[in-house]
Amino acid sequence: MKKFINTVDSLLDESLSGFAQAHGDIVHFNPEPRYVSRIALSRPGKVALISGGGSGHEPLHTGFVGFGMLDAACPGQVFTSPTPDQMLAAAMAVENGGGVLFIVKNYAGDKMNFEIAAELLDRPHESLLVHDDVSIPEHQGMGRRGVAGTTLVEKMVGAAAESGYDLAACKALGERVVQRTASMGVALSSCTVPALGHPTFAIGEEEIELGVGIHGEKGRERMALVSASEIVEHLVRTIDQELKPAKAQPVLLHVNGLGATPLMELYLVYHLARQFWEQRGVTIARSLVGNFTTSLDMAGCSVTLSLLDEEMIRLWDAPVHTAALRWGC
Amino acid sequence: MKKFINTVDSLLDESLSGFAQAHGDIVHFNPEPRYVSRIALSRPGKVALISGGGSGHEPLHTGFVGFGMLDAACPGQVFTSPTPDQMLAAAMAVENGGGVLFIVKNYAGDKMNFEIAAELLDRPHESLLVHDDVSIPEHQGMGRRGVAGTTLVEKMVGAAAESGYDLAACKALGERVVQRTASMGVALSSCTVPALGHPTFAIGEEEIELGVGIHGEKGRERMALVSASEIVEHLVRTIDQELKPAKAQPVLLHVNGLGATPLMELYLVYHLARQFWEQRGVTIARSLVGNFTTSLDMAGCSVTLSLLDEEMIRLWDAPVHTAALRWGC
Repeated sequence: MKKFINTVDSLLDESLSGFAQAHGDIVHFNPEPRYVSRIALSRPGKVALISGGGSGHEPLHTGFVGFGMLDAACPGQVFTSPTPDQMLAAAMAVENGGGVLFIVKNYAGDKMNFEIAAELLDRPHESLLVHDDVSIPEHQGMGRRGVAGTTLVEKMVGAAAESGYDLAACKALGERVVQRTASMGVALSSCTVPALGHPTFAIGEEEIELGVGIHGEKGRERMALVSASEIVEHLVRTIDQELKPAKAQPVLLHVNGLGATPLMELYLVYHLARQFWEQRGVTIARSLVGNFTTSLDMAGCSVTLSLLDEEMIRLWDAPVHTAALRWGC
Repeated sequence: MKKFINTVDSLLDESLSGFAQAHGDIVHFNPEPRYVSRIALSRPGKVALISGGGSGHEPLHTGFVGFGMLDAACPGQVFTSPTPDQMLAAAMAVENGGGVLFIVKNYAGDKMNFEIAAELLDRPHESLLVHDDVSIPEHQGMGRRGVAGTTLVEKMVGAAAESGYDLAACKALGERVVQRTASMGVALSSCTVPALGHPTFAIGEEEIELGVGIHGEKGRERMALVSASEIVEHLVRTIDQELKPAKAQPVLLHVNGLGATPLMELYLVYHLARQFWEQRGVTIARSLVGNFTTSLDMAGCSVTLSLLDEEMIRLWDAPVHTAALRWGC
């Protein structure tokens, strides 16, 4: 295993310490129990947004803590859910009279632990489940996974909370964004979890994994390596069939790198995905290209489409000041 | 070779088209000859900053075109210098009465082609050479390579040009920033140039390449894979011996990913590098962590240190609005 690492046990804290030092104007890292929060409490009455999940997806979620997005993020060990005491401590630290909205990606461990934390929390709270991965059918097993659409949800709900939406309104907005957002990914390589020390799955030099998750889970289908146009066609067709954007529908197109794929290729994927929808008369109104929801050192990417309306556009454009997303301030 | 690619010949234009589409509020892509420029001319009399180099280092340089940084960037094929006609066309398009400053990374091809373009350009112009890579001795061969320090130079000189510095003052500032900036990199893997189709150099499962360049050139020394602390120690000691920062000296610490290394590891490297200088009483005043000067799909990173003064801090903090760096606007 080739990584910049001292020990598997110290990796997370050393990394989070560096993160908090590099962004000391935005975040504070609480080591015990682990959470990252804004350096200053949000204004009284604002809904506090808390997310979290296994580490290894950076910048998600710690990189989204700050003005206009999250109030706190709870990082678990690599690809491992954070524990309820982390979520509870984060909630107690950042709740400021507006209640807490937990934003949870749809994975068994995350869901269970956020539910326990919610039960223990003696403040108004709600939970919002993100399940944007359309690579698997909606009602199979645990249901759809939460993947790169999470960035969009956290940005828009974050702006809503900042602008005064109450707890119920934040949750309702978040559910609407989730309903209007679909993602699908593809891996060219596996990834190596430090504690495991070798790639999670084997994949041949001429194979790709379609519909891959963000934890090195196998995907929907193993297929032969084909041209970028053919790969992108698989992703965008599946998403298009799910969301069925109408002509002139404004959308946000997000191409997300899974970790080891160069920006040069991500922009090429973006170009091809954009072409697909533009040919159908869909309006690409907003775009986001880069590594946001990663899977350690996996080569690959995902495409996310979100059907926008005026409110969503306004919330997307609203000022944000986090380590990973920053504009308007 | 596993990449998102249609053909080797079309990769660059497909990628640049996607880049320009995703950032249509900031840049325009001229396909023939290839350059990326701001969508609007800068104010009359502003020094026009133009950089460029081989592609495969994204977001450098195209991602730095925009308010507060470059006026234009000229992308060559992967790891291949752009041609003089690109630079000349870019200069003619963006020069607006303040003359042109070419910012050139110290590589033979780039240097030669920018020199030819400068000779052909019938407008006031100067060139600034970036050579921040301290992994090789100063007067060996072509001299030191321009690597991740380029981001700092383009940001600070960009802010200076925006705030009214004239051509001579921009060049003088740039030379000062270069003198006060040192970088060194390390690779855990090689990278694969699309036209070649296989990794540029072979490296064992238990080996790393110290002092690597950003084109898959071999580095200064092949050594055994050791702990992150030991690897970082090699980088920061070499940089420290070069710059000899005094106690209380404010510095900018930049940890740059070479492409395939997760953010989690980059923050860990940042933490260790920061610790080294903090223990020596140096003040880490500004930080930048992420993929800025990449080498395609190479796993690895570089550390850059820059000795700051008040003017440099002011220029670093000044508003910038590009695809890759954005704050204050």
